[in-house]
Amino acid sequence: MELSKERAEFLARDFSRGFIAYCGFAADEVKRGYFRSSLRLRPEHRQQDGFVHAGVMAAMADHTAGYAGFTLIDEEHQILTIEFKINFLRPAQGDSLCCQSRVIREGRQLLVAESEVFATGEHEEKETARALVTLMAVPGAKLSAGDQVLGLRE
Amino acid sequence: MELSKERAEFLARDFSRGFIAYCGFAADEVKRGYFRSSLRLRPEHRQQDGFVHAGVMAAMADHTAGYAGFTLIDEEHQILTIEFKINFLRPAQGDSLCCQSRVIREGRQLLVAESEVFATGEHEEKETARALVTLMAVPGAKLSAGDQVLGLRE
Amino acid sequence: MELSKERAEFLARDFSRGFIAYCGFAADEVKRGYFRSSLRLRPEHRQQDGFVHAGVMAAMADHTAGYAGFTLIDEEHQILTIEFKINFLRPAQGDSLCCQSRVIREGRQLLVAESEVFATGEHEEKETARALVTLMAVPGAKLSAGDQVLGLRE
Amino acid sequence: MELSKERAEFLARDFSRGFIAYCGFAADEVKRGYFRSSLRLRPEHRQQDGFVHAGVMAAMADHTAGYAGFTLIDEEHQILTIEFKINFLRPAQGDSLCCQSRVIREGRQLLVAESEVFATGEHEEKETARALVTLMAVPGAKLSAGDQVLGLRE
Repeated sequence: MELSKERAEFLARDFSRGFIAYCGFAADEVKRGYFRSSLRLRPEHRQQDGFVHAGVMAAMADHTAGYAGFTLIDEEHQILTIEFKINFLRPAQGDSLCCQSRVIREGRQLLVAESEVFATGEHEEKETARALVTLMAVPGAKLSAGDQVLGLRE
Repeated sequence: MELSKERAEFLARDFSRGFIAYCGFAADEVKRGYFRSSLRLRPEHRQQDGFVHAGVMAAMADHTAGYAGFTLIDEEHQILTIEFKINFLRPAQGDSLCCQSRVIREGRQLLVAESEVFATGEHEEKETARALVTLMAVPGAKLSAGDQVLGLRE
Repeated sequence: MELSKERAEFLARDFSRGFIAYCGFAADEVKRGYFRSSLRLRPEHRQQDGFVHAGVMAAMADHTAGYAGFTLIDEEHQILTIEFKINFLRPAQGDSLCCQSRVIREGRQLLVAESEVFATGEHEEKETARALVTLMAVPGAKLSAGDQVLGLRE
Repeated sequence: MELSKERAEFLARDFSRGFIAYCGFAADEVKRGYFRSSLRLRPEHRQQDGFVHAGVMAAMADHTAGYAGFTLIDEEHQILTIEFKINFLRPAQGDSLCCQSRVIREGRQLLVAESEVFATGEHEEKETARALVTLMAVPGAKLSAGDQVLGLRE
């Protein structure tokens, strides 16, 4: 399945809503199986030591991976994160963060993406986090069903 | 080492700074090797489908685990997150989130904590995420050294 | 769905095949949503420093979690591991290992289990590893389809 | 620090001991920050469905990552696995497995490596698993101290 220009533009706009808009993450590039986002760093992204909070990088790695997944599914489906794991490679400083996510397993239902987060300062860019993210494509109609999503038995 | 009343109160106040204050997370209970936090849910915590964004739960699981770690180290040290993994057990809805973190490996340098995130609605509380978090205690003086933190060779 | 005595006995026998039999893992207890296994330690379970190899504990945590999952699905389905994460809490020594796995998310398709591995010596038992395991229930008939399993697109 | 020919040869020999020799894993290539290993598949590497057991790939991903770490530390230190996470991308079949591990964070104490496991059949090679592995370099002298390793408080 190709990624149409319209779909790519829709996903770039759709990327920044709710928590993601509140944090300031923005879409930068959309390709089939690939998504790149960025964040201009503000004081509210820091933790107690002045570095970027791990939670900021985790949210970015997760959400960008999810949208890399969206480039591979049709408009009837939504992407949910099943789980992810993230390694923080060095404390993140600088002016902005950038995240690249690539789908490394393309399934109809289950997708796996890898995200790399980079911090950019005046003179350099360094990788600050690497994540593996497991995603699931769910029919959009199912999402209104709340706990029924993903076939939970309760 | 005991956890003094003063230290516990300091950690409860210190918990909500920078990104954590911006998101609205608050400390609820502090014990030796244990930390509990909560979040009153607002529209900016949601993702595109109306559920709480995975990044919110990840930030909460990570930060609460870190402060569970702080209850076991002295004031000369800081806690950094090395990595974490989080499973999302069901979509999170309701009025508020609560997170409990317990240290399951207490080391001088390396600590491991487990976090459980619960969503609370009108009539019920359900576990929505479970995380394993690897933490490192670092001498506070080292943190100003930026990339030298954690002994990175570059 | 109840777990019948016959099904529990079948799963206990079925547990030790192929790689698992080769390593020497055995089933100890089977309950609905729960599985316990053990391993009598031999020299071939060690790594270069004399401790139990991390791979032994990982295989045990994964396989025992999978069988905890089997107690919750019908006989037409098989369990596959989607991914897992394991923290090694201390070097493992002693005479034997024991692993307890509990399903913490019961879904029709997706299950999540937590595994705890303990090393037992003359006088004590200590937790040596903790894992979170994501499992998928797949119709048995699909498994012969190889790469088609899990809906891989290629 | 360079990787001497003698050290590389030593690590290639040292790779296959204990559990790793028992499973049949062998070193194929050793470079600074990189290690490649392989496994000729035998019936005892399978699980109940005929595919390679997840535990085999996990042990391979972990151990090969550890030896990629060994190429970056001096002979006075040993490598221990702190934790790892592995995603299984497709069921593994074929004649042999190959694993490539690269260190993506080089620290004096903490190292992070990424492992890719491939299954090779008659006509093709496919990635079957991807792992992120957190490693710690520990002074060899400390390893005899058992539980004191890694500064565990007990």
